[in-house]
Amino acid sequence: MTIETKQRPPRFDEAFKAQFAALVRWRRDVRRFRSDPVASSLIERLLALAVCAPSVGLSQPWRFILVETPERRRAISENFAKANQAALEGYAGERQARYARLKLEGLAQAPVHLAVCADETTAAGHGLGSRTMPETIRYSVVTAIQTLWLAARAEGLGVGWVSILDPAAVHETLELPPHWTFIAYLCIGWPEPG
Amino acid sequence: MTIETKQRPPRFDEAFKAQFAALVRWRRDVRRFRSDPVASSLIERLLALAVCAPSVGLSQPWRFILVETPERRRAISENFAKANQAALEGYAGERQARYARLKLEGLAQAPVHLAVCADETTAAGHGLGSRTMPETIRYSVVTAIQTLWLAARAEGLGVGWVSILDPAAVHETLELPPHWTFIAYLCIGWPEPG
Repeated sequence: MTIETKQRPPRFDEAFKAQFAALVRWRRDVRRFRSDPVASSLIERLLALAVCAPSVGLSQPWRFILVETPERRRAISENFAKANQAALEGYAGERQARYARLKLEGLAQAPVHLAVCADETTAAGHGLGSRTMPETIRYSVVTAIQTLWLAARAEGLGVGWVSILDPAAVHETLELPPHWTFIAYLCIGWPEPG
Repeated sequence: MTIETKQRPPRFDEAFKAQFAALVRWRRDVRRFRSDPVASSLIERLLALAVCAPSVGLSQPWRFILVETPERRRAISENFAKANQAALEGYAGERQARYARLKLEGLAQAPVHLAVCADETTAAGHGLGSRTMPETIRYSVVTAIQTLWLAARAEGLGVGWVSILDPAAVHETLELPPHWTFIAYLCIGWPEPG
């Protein structure tokens, strides 16, 4: 959908604002998914909204990778297991026991695995606005992730952000270009009721 | 507002989703503000939604600073002017001329100046999930910023993210604790029609 620049900007009424607030409050990190597939047209719709997020100097540095092969998914799960074990060993006593009981990801069940990266050398925007704070390139990607997350929730989809990963190993598994920074690994699917 | 955990999660209909998409698409980086004040209750409402954003291990590392004194605002404006001059000198020829014509911030007019930081050592969450990727603490803060931005737009408020700043100098001007990372400087106000 294109936006006519002469079009009047929309106004949002109280009912919409109340629903938007509910959307923000009900967004969850989902870790239990049904195995039903998610239509690729729906994922495309989410991505189309995500890329309307703000980006420094209109650099649009977000790069999305659908991780689909069993080999890569297995490597990511092993990466998580290793990082999670190390995290577990960093706790002691009751806190360690509690950590061990947490379900921190839904990698095995989620039908959609989406890796999100930042292209640090994107030519778009010609570096505008990111000279003193180059990290704003990565922050721009995060605004797209939060936009996608809210859009997914509005569709009834669950999203879980798996951060317990060795980013260098993810880089290798996904054969990312050297100038891309791995930002997030998202599990997406229909949440289990409960 | 509290959420009853037994409450049924809301469903979002097609009309809401269409309006949400319009909100995402119409969000702009606003740099021209009217000087009318913004009610502090409205800013509080935006912040209350922003803090519903996701955060790694529920660390909630966001810290918001309203920058109100003329001295600090002047220091931030001077910081911008210096960083912007350096950026200008990094371009040449026609691109430099075009850069010079851009209006990149609305610091002088915006009634509300909001600095946003990440507390890197927050005890909340006990480090859960951020061991291998500590940058997710900062990314969590960015999800709160994007949430605030969308909520502001729904209220008809404009937000501009000023990234052309020397972050070390901002740190000093705002007397931030050493373990806080400066993430974003936001100008907020009623946008000039245009």
